[in-house]
Amino acid sequence: MARGVMRLAVAFVAVLAVARVASAVDPLPSWNDGPAKQAILRFVADVTEPEGPRFVPVEERIAVFDNDGTLIAEQPLFFQFYFFLQRIRELAPLHPEWKEKQPFKAVLENDLAYLDSISRDELGEIVLRAASGVTEREYVASVERFLAEVEHPDRGVPFTRLVYQPMIELVTYLREKGFRVYIVSAAAPELIRAFSEKVFGIPREQVIGSDMQMRFDDSGERPELWREPAFVRPINERAGKPINIDRAVGRSPILAFGNSDGDIEMLSFTAYSGRPKLALLLHHDDAEREYGYEDGTQEALAVAKERGWIVVSMKESFRRVFPPEKRK
Amino acid sequence: MARGVMRLAVAFVAVLAVARVASAVDPLPSWNDGPAKQAILRFVADVTEPEGPRFVPVEERIAVFDNDGTLIAEQPLFFQFYFFLQRIRELAPLHPEWKEKQPFKAVLENDLAYLDSISRDELGEIVLRAASGVTEREYVASVERFLAEVEHPDRGVPFTRLVYQPMIELVTYLREKGFRVYIVSAAAPELIRAFSEKVFGIPREQVIGSDMQMRFDDSGERPELWREPAFVRPINERAGKPINIDRAVGRSPILAFGNSDGDIEMLSFTAYSGRPKLALLLHHDDAEREYGYEDGTQEALAVAKERGWIVVSMKESFRRVFPPEKRK
Repeated sequence: MARGVMRLAVAFVAVLAVARVASAVDPLPSWNDGPAKQAILRFVADVTEPEGPRFVPVEERIAVFDNDGTLIAEQPLFFQFYFFLQRIRELAPLHPEWKEKQPFKAVLENDLAYLDSISRDELGEIVLRAASGVTEREYVASVERFLAEVEHPDRGVPFTRLVYQPMIELVTYLREKGFRVYIVSAAAPELIRAFSEKVFGIPREQVIGSDMQMRFDDSGERPELWREPAFVRPINERAGKPINIDRAVGRSPILAFGNSDGDIEMLSFTAYSGRPKLALLLHHDDAEREYGYEDGTQEALAVAKERGWIVVSMKESFRRVFPPEKRK
Repeated sequence: MARGVMRLAVAFVAVLAVARVASAVDPLPSWNDGPAKQAILRFVADVTEPEGPRFVPVEERIAVFDNDGTLIAEQPLFFQFYFFLQRIRELAPLHPEWKEKQPFKAVLENDLAYLDSISRDELGEIVLRAASGVTEREYVASVERFLAEVEHPDRGVPFTRLVYQPMIELVTYLREKGFRVYIVSAAAPELIRAFSEKVFGIPREQVIGSDMQMRFDDSGERPELWREPAFVRPINERAGKPINIDRAVGRSPILAFGNSDGDIEMLSFTAYSGRPKLALLLHHDDAEREYGYEDGTQEALAVAKERGWIVVSMKESFRRVFPPEKRK
């Protein structure tokens, strides 16, 4: 027994020692030192200091991240869009009329010029058709096939390799500090749930997206959920984001990270509780390593300036952009 | 240092010893031995045994519980209903026409005969009026006032004292075994979130209810969510339950506990994944200690028989019904 106790003690002390070393290690090695990194580290230190004036109890440590352009590259098009294009092609034999009907014609002919300037309504029509008329079970399986098989058109790697390494580190750091981290995206939640656990350690139930209406069918051997061609309202962008966060979480976030006009209301929502808050906006100013663009972000950049949100320059703040290649 | 290590080791071994003793203690002391308790213990042992043929990985251990009549007494009326009655009375000065208009007239005159046989549509009208036209912030505050101040009409105790002690133990036991436990109710989630953390240890984000549509208002000093007089579809009962579980969790449950026809589809949903499953239906057959009734449960009892769901007799299975009085 005494020897057993001694072994346990040694193991226990070893664990403590590792923990102590780990806490001295930079939790955000892919972030350059600068105002963004300092603001994040200071905020997290403040809200987790039990004796401090800015302490936030662990149950209220909710962080929300937009997906496309915040956690993962969204150029030349949202990666979800490529999935919907693939679904339209798969479904085309059932819809011969699509050969002559826009926007389906452009999808089937791979008319990139047309698709690049596609209207919001046409995009909605593609998404509705691509995402409905099947069971949830089949839909989830087709998402998994897509992520395993299809590669990014410019870069020739799976889409999920285009997550930002600094964001993996930030999400991991927040989770270690007791935050529940949610992904809050206008996209279908199934598309994000397929990789959020593996890549970010974010469980499926912490993904909020734009849901389709469903029909429950209990007539067969096992129950099925059928996807109907209509969105649950509100769609999860702009003001829909705070509404759906409140619905899913029953709390408001104290930290929010976005990158476009669609995230303005979610970033504002950090002011709801009166707790200390941190609102961050990623600025895509790194044409060399990622993509340089401001389309769809001008309003957010203006509001950020007005309200003191932190604009995170990718060029200046990210030491590296994408995760290192895995050795085989 | 050596003395420090020894102290740590002793503390560590003491913790292990306590853990070992705890595991020998009955986790469900308020359950009588019998088929229901045995089925629960066997199921949990099976799905948590890593080497066993019925093992379920921790991330898939989702359990769902109905609220009214499953976790808490629902007689003579759902406790939420008393909250809505109070809200109608509070709002009456703004609506003089209610004095002559049913069902509001019955509420203001406390016409219990009318209220007892109220139609579903009238109930919906009361809920809509009582639950909208205010900010989410005010609504949550009014729920908290109600729970602190109003007592059960028959029993003269706060409503949250009428939770079932065996269910507190079961929820605690499941959470200890790695389950994420959700409350899935037709009621407003705000009403359940106000006590779920304190009473059951179930965080707010694991409460799924019938949501109202909201409007986000960012024009003032701080953002507000305004409650609109319309439900988000589907309402969270019958087939709405599996649909909203899939939406919120992205998984199906392996354990479901209900008590009425409104829970049939949620109980069926345990068959979705093909994993081991346990569906339980609480039978209110204990008129002496609780309430005896089968209204609104006949269909569920029939389906339970057909599908081998476990019918839990309150009379036979519950050693005690309500939690012991707290000593002051």
